[in-house]
Amino acid sequence: MTDMNESADVTAAGDASPSGPPGDLSRFSINQMTVKQLTLPELVEACVRLGVPGVGLWREPVQAYGLDAAAKLVRDAGLAVTTLCRGGFLTAIAPAARADALDDNRAAIDEAVTLGTDTLVLVSGGLPPGSRDLHGARERIVDALEVLAPYAGERGVRLAIEPLHPMYASDRCVVSTLDQALDLAERFPVDQVGVVVDTYHVWWDDRAPAAIARAADRIHSFQLADWTTPLPAGVLNGRGLIGDGAIDLRAWRERVDAAGYDGPIEVELFNDTLWVRDGAELLADVAERYVRHAL
Amino acid sequence: MTDMNESADVTAAGDASPSGPPGDLSRFSINQMTVKQLTLPELVEACVRLGVPGVGLWREPVQAYGLDAAAKLVRDAGLAVTTLCRGGFLTAIAPAARADALDDNRAAIDEAVTLGTDTLVLVSGGLPPGSRDLHGARERIVDALEVLAPYAGERGVRLAIEPLHPMYASDRCVVSTLDQALDLAERFPVDQVGVVVDTYHVWWDDRAPAAIARAADRIHSFQLADWTTPLPAGVLNGRGLIGDGAIDLRAWRERVDAAGYDGPIEVELFNDTLWVRDGAELLADVAERYVRHAL
Repeated sequence: MTDMNESADVTAAGDASPSGPPGDLSRFSINQMTVKQLTLPELVEACVRLGVPGVGLWREPVQAYGLDAAAKLVRDAGLAVTTLCRGGFLTAIAPAARADALDDNRAAIDEAVTLGTDTLVLVSGGLPPGSRDLHGARERIVDALEVLAPYAGERGVRLAIEPLHPMYASDRCVVSTLDQALDLAERFPVDQVGVVVDTYHVWWDDRAPAAIARAADRIHSFQLADWTTPLPAGVLNGRGLIGDGAIDLRAWRERVDAAGYDGPIEVELFNDTLWVRDGAELLADVAERYVRHAL
Repeated sequence: MTDMNESADVTAAGDASPSGPPGDLSRFSINQMTVKQLTLPELVEACVRLGVPGVGLWREPVQAYGLDAAAKLVRDAGLAVTTLCRGGFLTAIAPAARADALDDNRAAIDEAVTLGTDTLVLVSGGLPPGSRDLHGARERIVDALEVLAPYAGERGVRLAIEPLHPMYASDRCVVSTLDQALDLAERFPVDQVGVVVDTYHVWWDDRAPAAIARAADRIHSFQLADWTTPLPAGVLNGRGLIGDGAIDLRAWRERVDAAGYDGPIEVELFNDTLWVRDGAELLADVAERYVRHAL
């Protein structure tokens, strides 16, 4: 290992290869789930130490820490909250379940305001039990957005529809492609509803590059994860460490940039084999890989 | 259980519900992999007993039994061989590997001729090790088809490109949508290259209905499997028993029919939980479910 001095020279951390110049982390953001083994204060401390300027937060750990305390902790450290994950789950049929979902999404929007982020990620929801109607489920998302989009817009929050990989279509998200997400988003003003481009979900899709150009200023978040196989049972926690998989991450970053996006680039990994590692060391590794594989 | 008499009254078999009129199995075909616990003679016997008119065969068990013997066994029983699985794996870069793949596909075409089927299913292959170039891999498939398509056509065999679910894009098949498969197939005469429509692989795709209409007489095979979750590790052997999952199988059958397809409807399931069941009982169950959910 080269001399690691816990400075912002991330190229020397987490990798035994000779270091080049320090990488540019100005657009880098770490999604909290990637290093969920860190408490929120540990995450903030590690970001400050490494020079990571942004974090994507999740509602559950924020609520567990305390919303106002989390907002103060992050704000005092000078970190940007690039996204809040997540709202959505808007495909229920039963009126009570739909009302609950709207209430929960309004609460998520309010939490985004408190945390100082302008982007709430939406995972739209899967098929209700016993349903086989993908089209109907997608239309119910529109119905819900008609209520939520103005509420978000009035508070300076954008709802960012995240298409999820088609392997999640039945149980998690009936929005499977970037074009489908845009078909929904474009029914609303751009400052109310946009999309998330996550490499893990779109990398296989030969129409995604054109959809990114179509998306333009509706790209409200850009996230990186790599595709590695074999997938684990349940296919939730096998997102590949960036650089380890099949995705040309730099090419996707360049496409998003060419569409006019110049915002944060967030690394969001769910991976059991990463969560057992030391969280601060993992963060340094991810930052170094971000520089090496995406810039 | 109602009185089950081992006749072709499949609605009374494998299900405790009251039986209606016997179902129409005239288009039904059972893919050998669905009931791989059966030997080839057992499979043939079970098909004849139930009135199942067609089988989709796999090269490995056919070779293990003996190609000529298998052809005779099936022919003597009056069964149609609706497909042979499988050729393909055409994405290699190294010249020796590419030559081997062409040789193997020519052998598969010859085996199809011997078995008396006009349809060889192609699983195109994934990314070569270390490659992140999906587009290049798809182009190499075209290069291979330029050699194989005339060879197949001269022998009365059609190469049927099967788009596989995007979760297989890196390691198994870079052709992930029906439109991609058609983009490849349409470069060749329709009697040489077409596509497989398998509900398991296309059900999530809102563009697949239009692609089916586009495919028209390039639909060389139609296969049924249902989508159930959670997916098992490796995501290979979790195809749902038809009727158990999220797919509106009848709607897809109607779309394929509307496109002009009137050929066999093959049920192809890979599922560890099904392979431990009695094979003949499973076949009867599948046939009954085919009638109930797809016709």
